[in-house]
Amino acid sequence: MIFASDNWSGAHPAVNAALAEHGTGMAAAYGSSDLDKAVEQRFNEIFEREVAVFFVGTGTAANSLAFAAVNRPGGVVMCHREAHVVEDECGAPEFFTHGARMAPIDGEGGLINPVNLKRELMRFNPDFVHAGQPMAVTVSQPGEAGTIYPVETLDRIAAIAHEHNLSLHMDGARFANALVATGMSPAEMTWKRGVDILSFGATKNGCWCAEAVIFFDPEKAKQFPYIRKRGAQLFSKTRFVAAQFLAYFEGDLWLENAAQANAMADRLRAALETSPHARQAWPTHSNEVFAIFEKATAAALRDKGAVFYDWNPPHSSHDLLGEDEMLARLVTSWSTTEEDVAEFARLIA
Amino acid sequence: MIFASDNWSGAHPAVNAALAEHGTGMAAAYGSSDLDKAVEQRFNEIFEREVAVFFVGTGTAANSLAFAAVNRPGGVVMCHREAHVVEDECGAPEFFTHGARMAPIDGEGGLINPVNLKRELMRFNPDFVHAGQPMAVTVSQPGEAGTIYPVETLDRIAAIAHEHNLSLHMDGARFANALVATGMSPAEMTWKRGVDILSFGATKNGCWCAEAVIFFDPEKAKQFPYIRKRGAQLFSKTRFVAAQFLAYFEGDLWLENAAQANAMADRLRAALETSPHARQAWPTHSNEVFAIFEKATAAALRDKGAVFYDWNPPHSSHDLLGEDEMLARLVTSWSTTEEDVAEFARLIA
Amino acid sequence: MIFASDNWSGAHPAVNAALAEHGTGMAAAYGSSDLDKAVEQRFNEIFEREVAVFFVGTGTAANSLAFAAVNRPGGVVMCHREAHVVEDECGAPEFFTHGARMAPIDGEGGLINPVNLKRELMRFNPDFVHAGQPMAVTVSQPGEAGTIYPVETLDRIAAIAHEHNLSLHMDGARFANALVATGMSPAEMTWKRGVDILSFGATKNGCWCAEAVIFFDPEKAKQFPYIRKRGAQLFSKTRFVAAQFLAYFEGDLWLENAAQANAMADRLRAALETSPHARQAWPTHSNEVFAIFEKATAAALRDKGAVFYDWNPPHSSHDLLGEDEMLARLVTSWSTTEEDVAEFARLIA
Amino acid sequence: MIFASDNWSGAHPAVNAALAEHGTGMAAAYGSSDLDKAVEQRFNEIFEREVAVFFVGTGTAANSLAFAAVNRPGGVVMCHREAHVVEDECGAPEFFTHGARMAPIDGEGGLINPVNLKRELMRFNPDFVHAGQPMAVTVSQPGEAGTIYPVETLDRIAAIAHEHNLSLHMDGARFANALVATGMSPAEMTWKRGVDILSFGATKNGCWCAEAVIFFDPEKAKQFPYIRKRGAQLFSKTRFVAAQFLAYFEGDLWLENAAQANAMADRLRAALETSPHARQAWPTHSNEVFAIFEKATAAALRDKGAVFYDWNPPHSSHDLLGEDEMLARLVTSWSTTEEDVAEFARLIA
Repeated sequence: MIFASDNWSGAHPAVNAALAEHGTGMAAAYGSSDLDKAVEQRFNEIFEREVAVFFVGTGTAANSLAFAAVNRPGGVVMCHREAHVVEDECGAPEFFTHGARMAPIDGEGGLINPVNLKRELMRFNPDFVHAGQPMAVTVSQPGEAGTIYPVETLDRIAAIAHEHNLSLHMDGARFANALVATGMSPAEMTWKRGVDILSFGATKNGCWCAEAVIFFDPEKAKQFPYIRKRGAQLFSKTRFVAAQFLAYFEGDLWLENAAQANAMADRLRAALETSPHARQAWPTHSNEVFAIFEKATAAALRDKGAVFYDWNPPHSSHDLLGEDEMLARLVTSWSTTEEDVAEFARLIA
Repeated sequence: MIFASDNWSGAHPAVNAALAEHGTGMAAAYGSSDLDKAVEQRFNEIFEREVAVFFVGTGTAANSLAFAAVNRPGGVVMCHREAHVVEDECGAPEFFTHGARMAPIDGEGGLINPVNLKRELMRFNPDFVHAGQPMAVTVSQPGEAGTIYPVETLDRIAAIAHEHNLSLHMDGARFANALVATGMSPAEMTWKRGVDILSFGATKNGCWCAEAVIFFDPEKAKQFPYIRKRGAQLFSKTRFVAAQFLAYFEGDLWLENAAQANAMADRLRAALETSPHARQAWPTHSNEVFAIFEKATAAALRDKGAVFYDWNPPHSSHDLLGEDEMLARLVTSWSTTEEDVAEFARLIA
Repeated sequence: MIFASDNWSGAHPAVNAALAEHGTGMAAAYGSSDLDKAVEQRFNEIFEREVAVFFVGTGTAANSLAFAAVNRPGGVVMCHREAHVVEDECGAPEFFTHGARMAPIDGEGGLINPVNLKRELMRFNPDFVHAGQPMAVTVSQPGEAGTIYPVETLDRIAAIAHEHNLSLHMDGARFANALVATGMSPAEMTWKRGVDILSFGATKNGCWCAEAVIFFDPEKAKQFPYIRKRGAQLFSKTRFVAAQFLAYFEGDLWLENAAQANAMADRLRAALETSPHARQAWPTHSNEVFAIFEKATAAALRDKGAVFYDWNPPHSSHDLLGEDEMLARLVTSWSTTEEDVAEFARLIA
Repeated sequence: MIFASDNWSGAHPAVNAALAEHGTGMAAAYGSSDLDKAVEQRFNEIFEREVAVFFVGTGTAANSLAFAAVNRPGGVVMCHREAHVVEDECGAPEFFTHGARMAPIDGEGGLINPVNLKRELMRFNPDFVHAGQPMAVTVSQPGEAGTIYPVETLDRIAAIAHEHNLSLHMDGARFANALVATGMSPAEMTWKRGVDILSFGATKNGCWCAEAVIFFDPEKAKQFPYIRKRGAQLFSKTRFVAAQFLAYFEGDLWLENAAQANAMADRLRAALETSPHARQAWPTHSNEVFAIFEKATAAALRDKGAVFYDWNPPHSSHDLLGEDEMLARLVTSWSTTEEDVAEFARLIA
C-alpha cells in the first residue's frame, strides 16, 4: 500500500532489458551515438514534427534549463502559486536562471486561472524597468494538484502568453498520465495548443532516470547545448538515457504504464467517495489523489502499512481542514497493483 | 580500435544485473532507501572512516557542487592551467559557484607545481578585498594529462592548502585508475593525504551514470543536501545509482576494471615507444596516453578504423608539435581488449 | 506640483556644501579615509551601539546584498506580496542571492500579517529539502503602501523570525520618515525590535546617492566586504558618500527633511479627505499617499501640471477601482512646498 | 607625496559646482531628466556618432555589466593575465555573468599579445561544447601596467575578435590618460579601431563617481536597461552623475586633468631614470609608473611621507625582483602637484 510517490516505483523490466542490451560495445559519448540519434527520431515521430530533444537527469533540471533557455534579464515566469517549480525544486529554477522570479498566479485546483494571468501581466509595462520583464508562462499537465487543464483553458493561456510575447512551457513530469486521461495525442497536447517547450518526464512512469527538454521550434534551441553542459546535465554515456526511452516508447509501454497508474487512481477515488472515514480534498484526473483524513485515521492507516505523505493545503484554502484533520497525497504508479488499492479501500471502508 | 574516451565504453554486465535486480518493488526515493544506505555504508568501509556521500549525475556536477560547498564570496579555486574544471566543463564550476574564479597554476605534465601554487597564493592579501579570496585547491588524480601526482607532491600541496585555510579537493573522475597505478588505498590517496572532498567517478570505469561527492568531514556537508537539490542533481530514484555502486564495489570489480584499462594503456605506451611513426608526447601513468603523429599518419590510422581525439597542447608547450604533426589523446577503458591494442600497435609499427 | 517620487527631489544645499568641502586634497580610497571612519562612528552614536556600516549606491543594492549576506542554499525570503524587493527591483534580490526566492506573504495595507507569515513558515520542513529553506524575513518601514508597522506587529514578526532562526531585515529606504511619523528612536525602531540588518536610505531624503547596509551584530558582517566588492558596490572615492551622510546627520537635518515631507503628506491627505473628486485608497502614515481619481480627473490634474504615477492595486484588492477610476501614488519630499500642496488641494477641491 | 592611486584624489571644484547648480528643483529620476539627456547628447558629440550611454557607479560595474550584455552560455572572455577584471574586481565579472570565465592571455607589458590571443582562440571548437564559447575580448587602455596599446596592436586584436565573432570591449578606467598620451580622438581610440563597448571612467580623473558603459551600436544595448537595474546600478537621482559628466567635458576639463596627471608621471619616470636608488620596472606611457626599490629604500621613502602600494609582479616576471627588492606602483592624478613630484625626486636622487 505504498502511495508515497510514483518515484518510489522501480524501473520496468523492459527498461532494464534495454540497458543490458545496449551496454555492450563502444559508442560515441555525449549524445552522438547512433542510439541517441534513433531515439531523437522517435521523438519526432511521437510529436509528429521535427523537435529538438535534450536528455537531462531530473525533472527539476528540465524545468530549470528550459527557463534558462528563454530567460531575459530581470525575467519573470508566470506559474501557479503552488507549482512544482515554486514549491518543490529548492529554488533551482531561480538558480539556473540567475534569479528569474516565479510569479505566483492563483487558480482553483492547481490550475492557472487565465483571468488572473492576464491581470498579473497587466502589472508589467515595458517602460518601467523596475518590475522586470515576463519571459514565460509555465503550466503543469497534469497540474500539481492532480488536475488536468481543459483544452479551452490551455488555449486561452497560450493565447495570452503569445500575445505578450512569452514562451509557453509545459511541465510534463507526468505527461503520459495526462495523455491517457484525456485521450489526446502528444502533438494535440503540446504544440498544437501553442506549447513552445516541454519538460518530458519518463522517470516516474517506468524508467530509472529519463527526462528530456523538448523544443518544438528547434531554431530556439541553438544555445541549449551550452546551457545544458554548463548546467552539468550533459551525461557522458547518454545512451543509457536513450536506451530507457527506446524501451519506454516501444509498443506504447509508456501509455500502458500510465493507464495502469490512472486506473489505480480511479479506484482510489472511488474508495474515497464511498468511505465514511475519508473524503477527496478536490476532484483529480490523473494518478494523484488528495484525501482528507482525521489525523487518527491517518495514523491508523499508516500503522497498517499504508504509506503516503502529508501535504500542504493550497494557499487559497488554508481552511480546508478541520482541526483534527490532515491532507494526504496518494499517488499511484505503473507498478501499483489492484491488490494494493483494494486493501487500502477495505481499510477506509 | 576505439581510444576516443573511456566514456565510450558501456556498462559492465554486473552493473546491469544489479539494476535489473533492484528495479522491482517500491523503495523510498531521494536517497533514503535501504539500498542507498547500504551503499553509503560501503563507502565508509572503502575509505576506512565515516564519510558523507552524495550521488550526482556527472563529474562536472561533482566538481562544481563540491566547490559550491566550500565557496566564499569572491572565491578563487587554485587549479592546474589545463585542469578539466577549466578546459572541459563549459564554465559549470564558475556557474554553480556564481562566479568563483579558477586560477590557473602552471606545472609540468598537467600537475600543479607547489612552488607556483605558493607563489600564486602570495598574491592574495586578506586586507585587499579586490583580489577576492582563495577558497580551495583542486588536484586531479590522475591529472588531465594522464599523469599521477607523487605522494610527496600531494603532501606539499595539501600542506600549502591547509596553511592558507583552503579546502583541498580531488577530482577523481578516474580515481580507480590512480589507485591501481600506485597501489595506494582509497584512504591513503585521499584523507590521509589531506584531501577534504573527493569527486568520486565510476561512470568511465564500468557504470552508466554513477558519480559521488565525498566529504571526509561529514560536518562540512551540512548544507550540501540543499546545494545538490538546488543544483538539480538530486535524482528521485537514487537506487539506480546505488545499485551501480553496489556492483562496482562487489568483488573489487572497480579495481579489476581499472587494472584492465591501465594494462592496455601500458601496451599502448610500449607500442609508441618502439614505433618509428609516433612518439609519446610525455610520459603518463594511467589509462590516458598522449601521442604525437604526423598528420598523415593520424589520417591513415583513422582510415584503418582507429578512433582518437585531437588534443590541445599544454599552454606551456605550444611548440610541442612540428608543423605537420598533431597531438592525439588515446584512452583505454575496462572494455578495451588486447586485440584492439595489438592491432593499433601493428599499424604504427 | 510634482508628486512623482521623492527621488525627483535634488540634494539639500548642506549636502552639496559637504561635498565641496571634502573634495579637496588626497584621502584614502575604498572606505578607509578618516572621513569614512568618522561617519561610521556617527552611525554608532545614532544607533546607540556598535554597528557595522557599509555604504552602497542604491537601495536595491542595499536590500540585495543584505539578503546575500544571510543567504542559505535554496534560500527563501519572507516578504510582503507587494514588497519593493519583489515588485520594483527587477529581480536584483534574486540575482544577487543566485536565486533566493521572495515568498509573498499577504497582509492588509502593505504590511505582512504575522498570522500569514507563521502559516507560510509552517509549509517548510527541514527534512524536506525540496521546498528550500527560509533564511530571512524582510519588512519595509514605512511599507510600500505608505503605512507603518505598529510596534506590536513588528515585535510579533521578529519573534516569529527568530523562533525560526531567520534574520530579520528592514528595508529603510524612507527610514527617517518612519522615525518622524512614530517618534521612535533609530534604536527603538530597529535592534530593540529584533531587526538584524537595516537598509538605511538617505538618497530620497536630501542626499544624492547615500545608502548603507547596517548590521547590528558586526560579527555577522565578516564576509560582507567581499560580498559588496563582488557586487560592484564598493566605491573608490567613498568619502563622497561619507560627506553626504555627515551633512545628513548634522543638526538632525535628516529628521527635519523627513518631517517636512511627512507634513506635506498630511496636508495632501487632508485635501483628499474633503475632496469631492478624489479619495484616499487607504490610510497612510508617511510621505506616500494613495489616491483614487476618476481617469478624467487624473488627466485634468496632469494637464494643470500635477505629476504623479499610476500605481498597481494590491493583489488582494483588484476590485479597488471602479471602471473609470485609476490609482495614483503621490509622494512628498523634503523639498515639497506648501504652495505645491495648496495648489493641488485647490485643484481637487 | 601621495602616489597611492588616482582615486585618492578628490573631485575637481568644477564638478562640485555642477552638483550644487543642479541640486535644486525637481527632475525626473532614473535617467530621464533633461540633464541626463543633454549629457547623453554630449557623449554623441564626443564620440562623433550616436552611442548608447548608461551611467553606472563603479568601473567594476561597467566592466561586469558590459560582459553580461554580450555573454553567451559557457561564455569566455579573453583578457590579459593581469587584467583588472581578473586581479582586482573580486570576481565581479564572473558574478555578473553567472560564471563567464576570464581566460588569461599572456603578453609583455600588460598588453595582450595578438599571437597568444589567436592561439588561445584556436583551442575552442564550436562542435566541442565542453570548452565553452568565447564571447568577448577585453583590452585596457591604458593597460594595467601603465602601458598603452599601439594602434597596430589594437587593430590586430580587433580583427581577431571580429573574425571569431566576438565583441571587443575596452576598459577605459583611465581613458582620458590614454587619449592625452597618444593624441588620438575618442572616436579614433574606440569604434574606429573596432571597439564595440567602452567602460568610460571619469571617477579617477576628477569626478566623485561617474562611470558609463558605452555601446557604439545602440541596437546591441536593447536589454541593457534591465541588465543594469537587475545589477543594482540604476541610480535614482541620475542627474548627480550627469552633472559630473557635464562639468567633466566642459572646456575639455577631462583632457586637461589627464594631461596634468600624465605630465607628473613623466617627471616621475625621469626621476627614476636618473636615480641611483631606484629603477623603472618597465616603461610606461600614462599616469602609472612602476618602480623597483630596495626594501630599505621603500621603507625610508615611506618614512618621509611617500605613499605608494606594493604591487604583484607579472606572472611572467616572477624573477623581476632581487631578494631585497620590492615592486612599487606610483600613480599620479589631476591633483598631483609639481612639488609632490619634485620632493619625491629629491628623495630618490
